[in-house]
Amino acid sequence: MKPKKAKEELRVRSIRNGSVIDHIKAGNALNVLKILDITGTTQAIVSVAMNVPSKRQPLGRKDIVKIEDRELIPAEVDKIALIAPLATINIIRDYEVVQKNSVILPRVITNIVRCPNINCISNSSEPVFSKFAVLESHALRCAYCETIIDNDIASCLI
Amino acid sequence: MKPKKAKEELRVRSIRNGSVIDHIKAGNALNVLKILDITGTTQAIVSVAMNVPSKRQPLGRKDIVKIEDRELIPAEVDKIALIAPLATINIIRDYEVVQKNSVILPRVITNIVRCPNINCISNSSEPVFSKFAVLESHALRCAYCETIIDNDIASCLI
Repeated sequence: MKPKKAKEELRVRSIRNGSVIDHIKAGNALNVLKILDITGTTQAIVSVAMNVPSKRQPLGRKDIVKIEDRELIPAEVDKIALIAPLATINIIRDYEVVQKNSVILPRVITNIVRCPNINCISNSSEPVFSKFAVLESHALRCAYCETIIDNDIASCLI
Repeated sequence: MKPKKAKEELRVRSIRNGSVIDHIKAGNALNVLKILDITGTTQAIVSVAMNVPSKRQPLGRKDIVKIEDRELIPAEVDKIALIAPLATINIIRDYEVVQKNSVILPRVITNIVRCPNINCISNSSEPVFSKFAVLESHALRCAYCETIIDNDIASCLI
């Protein structure tokens, strides 16, 4: 049914300059914002759609994040890959897509995810950054204690 | 300048059923989501615009949150009032605005904000909920230790 009486309309228009992160695993947009240090009160000009219909995602839903006047750097893209392995990241300049990338999972990640094993040396007072190997299954294996994280990586983000 | 070459467009359409929170103080949409327990990975169908132009807000920017299939209850509206005192909350049913409310600051709030005074009894192991009087200035005064919170209430949300 077509909405005839819509009184509320919000159109999040194309952005002039910035980054568009599309095909984020449904429900994970807030984790993506967290990775990008957009939390709490923010100055960033951002639009977000969560759990909206998608033809491409396996479950038919996806999230989208648009950030104006910010071009994501490779380290940020790597982190996003961890929780949104199917995401695409478009860099926009003057309304044109100048770069269109799929995310690529890094093989090793350092200081991004906290080891869930409280006895791991990376959780001690030693000056040791957390370090994980990214397995083919997309699970993570701690380089120190070999603990595996195979679901809800988002909740382990530092 | 009108965007002629826009290749990326995201239109967050009117919602059929749910709540639209408009005129949120710019940059505070994520705090509003936190109040509504929409954090981390979520099932909620939500669209958010942060720091977008507004004619009404003093600084010319505002945030908007649209939540589908959820009608906010008074206790939630009270919490939103604390960090977004100019917000309007519209309840939508079948594309119609059936209720249009401005938020009203409650006079007393309980168990919503943590007292910043670490020695306050509400921060001890005693079974005491935090409690604040809401002053005319919109600042909060702890009912136990009289500590005043007059800015960044969002960072004190429980």
